[in-house]
Amino acid sequence: MRSKPSSPTHEARLKRLVLGMKRRALAALVIEDPVDIFYLTGFHASLATLILTPSSGKLFVDGRYRQKATEVVAFPIGEYGLKAVESFFARLSGKKVGFDSGKSSYERALALRRCARQGGALLVPISEPLKRVRVIKDGPEVAALKKSAKLNQKAYEHVLTLLKPGVTEREVARSLEIFALENGAEKLSFDPIIAFGKGSALPHYSPGDVKLKASDIILIDMGVMVDQYASDMTRVVLPKKCPPEMQKIYDTVIGAYEAAAAICRPGTKMGALDRAARGVMKKAGLEKLFIHGLGHGVGLEVHEFPRIKFDGIDRNVILEPGMVLTIEPGLYLPGKGGVRYENTVIVTPRGHTNLYTC
Amino acid sequence: MRSKPSSPTHEARLKRLVLGMKRRALAALVIEDPVDIFYLTGFHASLATLILTPSSGKLFVDGRYRQKATEVVAFPIGEYGLKAVESFFARLSGKKVGFDSGKSSYERALALRRCARQGGALLVPISEPLKRVRVIKDGPEVAALKKSAKLNQKAYEHVLTLLKPGVTEREVARSLEIFALENGAEKLSFDPIIAFGKGSALPHYSPGDVKLKASDIILIDMGVMVDQYASDMTRVVLPKKCPPEMQKIYDTVIGAYEAAAAICRPGTKMGALDRAARGVMKKAGLEKLFIHGLGHGVGLEVHEFPRIKFDGIDRNVILEPGMVLTIEPGLYLPGKGGVRYENTVIVTPRGHTNLYTC
Repeated sequence: MRSKPSSPTHEARLKRLVLGMKRRALAALVIEDPVDIFYLTGFHASLATLILTPSSGKLFVDGRYRQKATEVVAFPIGEYGLKAVESFFARLSGKKVGFDSGKSSYERALALRRCARQGGALLVPISEPLKRVRVIKDGPEVAALKKSAKLNQKAYEHVLTLLKPGVTEREVARSLEIFALENGAEKLSFDPIIAFGKGSALPHYSPGDVKLKASDIILIDMGVMVDQYASDMTRVVLPKKCPPEMQKIYDTVIGAYEAAAAICRPGTKMGALDRAARGVMKKAGLEKLFIHGLGHGVGLEVHEFPRIKFDGIDRNVILEPGMVLTIEPGLYLPGKGGVRYENTVIVTPRGHTNLYTC
Repeated sequence: MRSKPSSPTHEARLKRLVLGMKRRALAALVIEDPVDIFYLTGFHASLATLILTPSSGKLFVDGRYRQKATEVVAFPIGEYGLKAVESFFARLSGKKVGFDSGKSSYERALALRRCARQGGALLVPISEPLKRVRVIKDGPEVAALKKSAKLNQKAYEHVLTLLKPGVTEREVARSLEIFALENGAEKLSFDPIIAFGKGSALPHYSPGDVKLKASDIILIDMGVMVDQYASDMTRVVLPKKCPPEMQKIYDTVIGAYEAAAAICRPGTKMGALDRAARGVMKKAGLEKLFIHGLGHGVGLEVHEFPRIKFDGIDRNVILEPGMVLTIEPGLYLPGKGGVRYENTVIVTPRGHTNLYTC
């Protein structure tokens, strides 16, 4: 099928993608997202075009990447540019060619359409054609995700040793990052959220020069990249003297997590997971303080398909073995503080496995 | 103009953007790129819509960002979503509304168009409407870019202390990153390229487990982020016993850099900069080994408008004071090794200033 032997992993991924192409009667599919291309070929380029047909394909890169691509990619390599796309399309006259309408820019879509028309092909929008392939993690991916989570937990344990009165959020964030790099992370999977006191009420807080006080609630949301795969986890440390309203919020968040986790198994819809968590919050009269979705897929990117929310576009996506996602209910009292609790879990044939033990 | 006082810096940026809107007869402009929104408001959100009119504007964010946005953004804040966009557009019936066709996805463009039609407005594509504003760096930006370059140079000097036989590329890359973080960088501005020996022939090489030998050419391409601004620099260290063909390549690259730098001043076209460098390579009979463009803008992102190449789309962009760009000629002998030499320069009224002194 390819000009060079491809790894069995990449072959299997391509095969799953080709099934989708055949279902949609596509003679070819244009893929330009660097992460999608890496997923299919093992090759990283900031700028590249991969055109797949059900039986072959070609990767177009510029001079910066040509030599390396020729060495590692199982597809023939061509020179990047619209001319190359046009001549590829010329072989597909009268046929349907898909492009990623969710990731390609409007301008790029128009340029691809002009190429398709020149060659007599018909360009059709496909929204993120790889998302249903990438959502099911294969063996090497599961191994990398576990390794990533393991280091993340180790880094969290390092963070706990830093939480002494007077330390600043920024100092903790920096020390966390250095620890992660020294212990084998490629980088952090996102800017960590280290929030002392009322900053914890902001779900996307940035660490600042706030110093830790004994009375502070502490929120830590962190992740690392290992072997190209992301991890993501949130913990809250309550102060010894915890105001009752914060304790109530904390207990409700844990209850909400458990309600969602209890139904996290193949067959459950994303919307149902979110509703299960929300139900616990509603009973406690706190639902309006839950101002984000329940979670998201995790893989090569820290935020991937699907987004878990009862009214979100992915609400009808059904859990399947091999999906990896976060469950992260949170409640936020503006100006006071917030609690979020987050694990990343792998869906198994009969339920799920939490990647964290802390 | 705004509901809250805005900083003079942000006011000045908006004013320049509004000039462009008026020139294009736009009643409003939709901006959704997080970096563009940060540039105009000082607020970071992974997901947001900013709709500007010549005299006002509104920022739409979801619950995760609402509180923080209300505190720091000078515009009124609305709830994120297409409904909000639609009701904003309803006030603009019969008028032209621009959107960023270079950054919005095809799908997003169609959704915005439906909103515009509902409200009777006409959606028109504008390719990266902020690029001509962001390309001229203002005072705080120049200060941040200088600070970023200064730390980058300090980190490079740290890297030089590591270059002892037996060290691996990966070890150097990791130590560089830790040094940068410990010395005040937010992060690296890109994955550094540390290449020993023949890896230097790949312009986008990734550090591996290659150990340094005394006979190796060493290529180091690195940058950091400080105060949100990027830096970018490349140096090559030649071995003591340098093969004559490598020495020739090195000398030619330096000559090419100097030829471009000699005309780097207001009034010069990007294409002319690239041609000046290429001319030196051509004389040496090496031009075909120059397999990338001469450089790019640097700012909040490490790769910004314009791209410098004689035949590139930005070839007719004319240098103006306040532009910040890299000049980075390189020559690559496949399988043997390569040389790139790169500085980041600020265009001044009469010439330019190199941000590096090493």
